[in-house]
Amino acid sequence: MEPGFRTRLSECRVGVIGLGLMGGSMALALKGACRSITGYDIDPATIKQAIDRGIINRPIDLRGDEVDLAILAAPVSAILDWLTRIPTVFSREFHLLDLGSTKTQIVERMQTLPDRISPLGGHPMCGKETSGLSAADSSLYRGCVFALTPLERTRPDTLDIIQELLTVVHARSLLLEPPGHDRAVAAISHLPYLVAVALVETVSQFDDEAAWRLAASGFRDTSRLAVSDVTMLLDILKSNRAEVLKALKSAQLSLQKTSELIEQEDWADLRARLETVREKRLWWENAKRAASNE
Amino acid sequence: MEPGFRTRLSECRVGVIGLGLMGGSMALALKGACRSITGYDIDPATIKQAIDRGIINRPIDLRGDEVDLAILAAPVSAILDWLTRIPTVFSREFHLLDLGSTKTQIVERMQTLPDRISPLGGHPMCGKETSGLSAADSSLYRGCVFALTPLERTRPDTLDIIQELLTVVHARSLLLEPPGHDRAVAAISHLPYLVAVALVETVSQFDDEAAWRLAASGFRDTSRLAVSDVTMLLDILKSNRAEVLKALKSAQLSLQKTSELIEQEDWADLRARLETVREKRLWWENAKRAASNE
Repeated sequence: MEPGFRTRLSECRVGVIGLGLMGGSMALALKGACRSITGYDIDPATIKQAIDRGIINRPIDLRGDEVDLAILAAPVSAILDWLTRIPTVFSREFHLLDLGSTKTQIVERMQTLPDRISPLGGHPMCGKETSGLSAADSSLYRGCVFALTPLERTRPDTLDIIQELLTVVHARSLLLEPPGHDRAVAAISHLPYLVAVALVETVSQFDDEAAWRLAASGFRDTSRLAVSDVTMLLDILKSNRAEVLKALKSAQLSLQKTSELIEQEDWADLRARLETVREKRLWWENAKRAASNE
Repeated sequence: MEPGFRTRLSECRVGVIGLGLMGGSMALALKGACRSITGYDIDPATIKQAIDRGIINRPIDLRGDEVDLAILAAPVSAILDWLTRIPTVFSREFHLLDLGSTKTQIVERMQTLPDRISPLGGHPMCGKETSGLSAADSSLYRGCVFALTPLERTRPDTLDIIQELLTVVHARSLLLEPPGHDRAVAAISHLPYLVAVALVETVSQFDDEAAWRLAASGFRDTSRLAVSDVTMLLDILKSNRAEVLKALKSAQLSLQKTSELIEQEDWADLRARLETVREKRLWWENAKRAASNE
């Protein structure tokens, strides 16, 4: 093959680093849409499973290999490590996309890559309660919003190829600046996790058998995120510490205000707040439905 | 018919007061298991719809009527009003069950009923996002935990008939004292609602288009309860004020502790807490699954 950057996904040898739920699902969804798919995972058994199931063509050789598009599908701290290591693994020009949950630190580290690598930050807003390659699913990205945070140095053909990739996996792109992305996900993704944790912790402190037996679908849904992978979440909280603290503060103030209104039996003000929140949540649900039908 | 209390559900003329989601679903589920079903709703169009759809046999005549089992299926404040009014509507002996979301105030008011009424507090732990008779569903109670709070004056045959009723609708009973019930639901039902409200309010205060567009299934599930009916929830918060305030305080402390650990970058302590919460939530999920397979 000619050296240089590819301009079409179908010409790309894709290398997926991290064969968990996100990377495995991406490899499955890209099957047939690119020239070949190689893969790497820290767990050799996962690499073997990926080959046995035909998810990747062969393992990436860390001592020296070639790709046209590398996809980093790992927790944030592992992606940061890989951004230091990846120039030693692939020696020619290639496009690079990451799937990390926060973007500011990752994009900063991407600035230090050699010129022959064209990096693009990415974050697909999808997932599952179960993790690992066994949970991988070729339709995981279908209908999901996929945040992209281009750098000034990101080549136009990198953006083109990734837009092509999103079409193949049926995701919808949303271009954002890294700080705006991290601020938004603190509120809509990291805070929901911490709020779910607070809820479970409160019921645990009651330590009341009746409470656990009475808990039904409302508790189930509101607390669902509390079973998320702790290592992955800690990574996210570390890398988005300032924004998460702001979101937490805001939620604490909201609960405080609710407490005060109930304490003071100010039912009129409480009703006004609850109605406003209800309207906003219904608006979001409708907007989301409309967007997914576009 | 002989006067006196019936001892079998199949002998009962059942009167359902409040033909919304809960009352309508109960009437649907009891069809064929009792002698007749009459109904009342504050909205005449709902009564008409219930007759047209064959959900009730005829309307309750508020100027004077007979039942063997009355079921109060309304918001807490309306149940409290009905407990004052119901002796003037039905003049003979009857069993009385309510489906109110909190129990202490209701059971207190039940104490004031004449001796010819045998009351029993009830609270089915089920529901839907949509309310009203149009959403009624004969399988709504299937598999749900149904809290019962008997009074000292509750007749044994009242408990027998309601256990029979729960078998018919495929619900599982859980006997509780009213204060224990109210304390538990503050944590597992009312707090999840207020936590969902705090989450939506936080995202609203950010007022960031990107946040609303990025919000996905985690936000959706954690905030789902924020679309609950405000009038019904205010009723619940009013009637369970002290316990709700305690649960809110506990959740606020949990968020405060999380903030401090993130602020201090005490990742080891934070990890320990997150792991404990995760284990507890997984334990509950398994216990719930095991109970529903019993």
